[in-house]
Amino acid sequence: MHVMIIGAAGMLGRKLASRLVARGEVAGRPIDLLTLADVIEPSQCGPGIRTLTADVSSLGDAAELVAGRPDVIFHLAAIVSGEAEADFEKGYRINLDGTRHLLEAIRSAGAQGPYCPRLVFSSSLAVFGAPFPEEIPDEFFATPSTSYGTQKAIGELLLADYSRRGFIDGIAIRLPTICIRPGKPNKAASGFFSSILREPLVGEEAVLPVPESVRHWFASPRAAVGFLEHAAGIDLSGLGARRSLTMPGVSATVGEEIEALRRFGGERAVRLIRRQPDETIARIVLGWPQRFDPKAALALGFRAEPDFDAIVRVHIEDELAAATGPA
Amino acid sequence: MHVMIIGAAGMLGRKLASRLVARGEVAGRPIDLLTLADVIEPSQCGPGIRTLTADVSSLGDAAELVAGRPDVIFHLAAIVSGEAEADFEKGYRINLDGTRHLLEAIRSAGAQGPYCPRLVFSSSLAVFGAPFPEEIPDEFFATPSTSYGTQKAIGELLLADYSRRGFIDGIAIRLPTICIRPGKPNKAASGFFSSILREPLVGEEAVLPVPESVRHWFASPRAAVGFLEHAAGIDLSGLGARRSLTMPGVSATVGEEIEALRRFGGERAVRLIRRQPDETIARIVLGWPQRFDPKAALALGFRAEPDFDAIVRVHIEDELAAATGPA
Ligand SMILES: NC(=O)c1ccc[n+]([C@@H]2O[C@H](COP(=O)([O-])OP(=O)(O)OC[C@H]3O[C@@H](n4cnc5c(N)ncnc54)[C@H](O)[C@@H]3O)[C@@H](O)[C@H]2O)c1
Ligand SMILES: NC(=O)c1ccc[n+]([C@@H]2O[C@H](COP(=O)([O-])OP(=O)(O)OC[C@H]3O[C@@H](n4cnc5c(N)ncnc54)[C@H](O)[C@@H]3O)[C@@H](O)[C@H]2O)c1
Repeated sequence: MHVMIIGAAGMLGRKLASRLVARGEVAGRPIDLLTLADVIEPSQCGPGIRTLTADVSSLGDAAELVAGRPDVIFHLAAIVSGEAEADFEKGYRINLDGTRHLLEAIRSAGAQGPYCPRLVFSSSLAVFGAPFPEEIPDEFFATPSTSYGTQKAIGELLLADYSRRGFIDGIAIRLPTICIRPGKPNKAASGFFSSILREPLVGEEAVLPVPESVRHWFASPRAAVGFLEHAAGIDLSGLGARRSLTMPGVSATVGEEIEALRRFGGERAVRLIRRQPDETIARIVLGWPQRFDPKAALALGFRAEPDFDAIVRVHIEDELAAATGPA
Repeated sequence: MHVMIIGAAGMLGRKLASRLVARGEVAGRPIDLLTLADVIEPSQCGPGIRTLTADVSSLGDAAELVAGRPDVIFHLAAIVSGEAEADFEKGYRINLDGTRHLLEAIRSAGAQGPYCPRLVFSSSLAVFGAPFPEEIPDEFFATPSTSYGTQKAIGELLLADYSRRGFIDGIAIRLPTICIRPGKPNKAASGFFSSILREPLVGEEAVLPVPESVRHWFASPRAAVGFLEHAAGIDLSGLGARRSLTMPGVSATVGEEIEALRRFGGERAVRLIRRQPDETIARIVLGWPQRFDPKAALALGFRAEPDFDAIVRVHIEDELAAATGPA
């Protein structure tokens, strides 16, 4: 089977690629060819891996991506919320036109001969906008409060319609905020959710710009990769036109994050969190969802961590143990 | 004030134009110029009326539409459900790209000098897809089961984002199924809802393809024009990013329609309905919403008919009395 990851050089793309290489199969079938595509040259290589530098927002590149007729396509390419908000045109070009070009490329490949790949699209909680009920049901409407969220919501609608028409067999999975996001601190408004754990766990300071009462919905990078993998293999025929699923996650407050940090890093780690209230970040974050009741995803077998401790444990196992290497 | 109707040659566009001409004002301000635009040359004329033949799905035409910087734009141009389903590319070109081109044309006009028109977009119940709760709340999600519904739902999302960013001051109103639709019978799956009244009221036969128990959500053409007019004038600042409103309507079964017909046309009219079950139509219609709880629209002052009799009365007053002329 031919599997393609678009956005393969990104944080989740790289982890997904490693996972697929390690397992050698997905959706219960062996992977013969894994194409890693990104606008940045993907760095992973090995037998059965092909890399492709392509910009999904270019019509020609989108056609080239699909030319090899991959059986499963993970569409992870996107620019994130802050950038899509700062650069209106770029956000629409990459996050909306990119997705549409990809869908159109698949549709025209299908017009040349039977082709209906499984398409897994990484959507986001950003499709939702405040105010929210305490626990958000699957039937809650998408009223994004960012251009990024709008572009993801439109991608979901296109994916559902192209699926209904038989051009693709698509599923959009709305990923929780990934925590602990590995790597360097970034400027995303959500960055502190990860950095108040990631930095103190290695003895560095981190800034907390919001009160401890702030609650949000999380999953580890490992869980996110698990969602993507699971989404590639399940039977979607029962979903009808409802192809967008909110993924399960852990609802936790910043205070609960800090409690988990105390259990793993002790008081010394907790003391590395510097409280520095930021009105702007606090206001943005107040508009974010806090808790979901993701019945449909659970019924289809998607599983997140049971609690926040498990999320910290994943980080220690996958990032810190790996970094220091085997004893 | 300069007002523009795009899709002005259509059923609702013509009625809205007549209404605006008769009132001479909208949103509490006098209309100095009324531009009637359509891909088909609009037939209405008179002082202060300008007609424009333009295809909103062409980038150049969209810019031309906006060149006169109308203060209020009614965007009614669309191809309907059946056609968008039969011709996938045409549906996306007109119903999606057309709306996006219009929004982009407004955004670039705004880049040349302050411009933020009120944009009223005629959306549809087709943004919803079965299964439904018995009464659909405002917060219910949009999972369209047609390409037309998908295109309308995407238009709503774009309109909300362009409003949030300050490029337009937009509102999408989801019109109920218009009943009694004047004119000739057409091939729309929903056609019978109107024809089982319209034809018998003038002594002609009509075909009923579904059981009398079928329930749906209706408003008269006059109410629809009232929604559009009202949408042009109200303060939308309280809506935030939630710019799409399901309009109030009358929830009625086919049996209730027939009872209303009996009250206005007598037994003789009812006997002109020929029952001719059609599995395909019955299946399509079963997927349609039956009843809404349109709290947000009611709070903003949108009003539909109180019952189905009122819907029939509007037809008699606006179509039949008008056709025969004053006594
Ligand atoms: N990380 C999260 O918390 C989170 C949450 C919800 C959804 N998502 C979504 O998951 C996906 C992956 O997230 P991530 O955290 O790995 O992001 P990332 O920014 O690390 O990776 C995205 C990748 O897409 C690539 N890309 C951007 N534009 C492209 C284009 N035009 N053509 C081809 N490739 C392009 C980038 O080069 C990058 O490698 C994204 O779609 C993101 O929106 C992430
Ligand atoms: N009638 C209903 O029951 C109903 C219900 C819900 C929503 N709506 C929506 O209300 C609007 C008006 O409905 P209607 O019943 O008057 O439809 P209609 O078909 O009578 O009118 C639509 C008009 O749009 C014009 N048009 C089509 N493509 C165009 C283009 N590319 N550029 C410019 N003009 C174009 C057509 O020529 C036509 O005159 C539509 O957007 C429709 O989707 C109607």
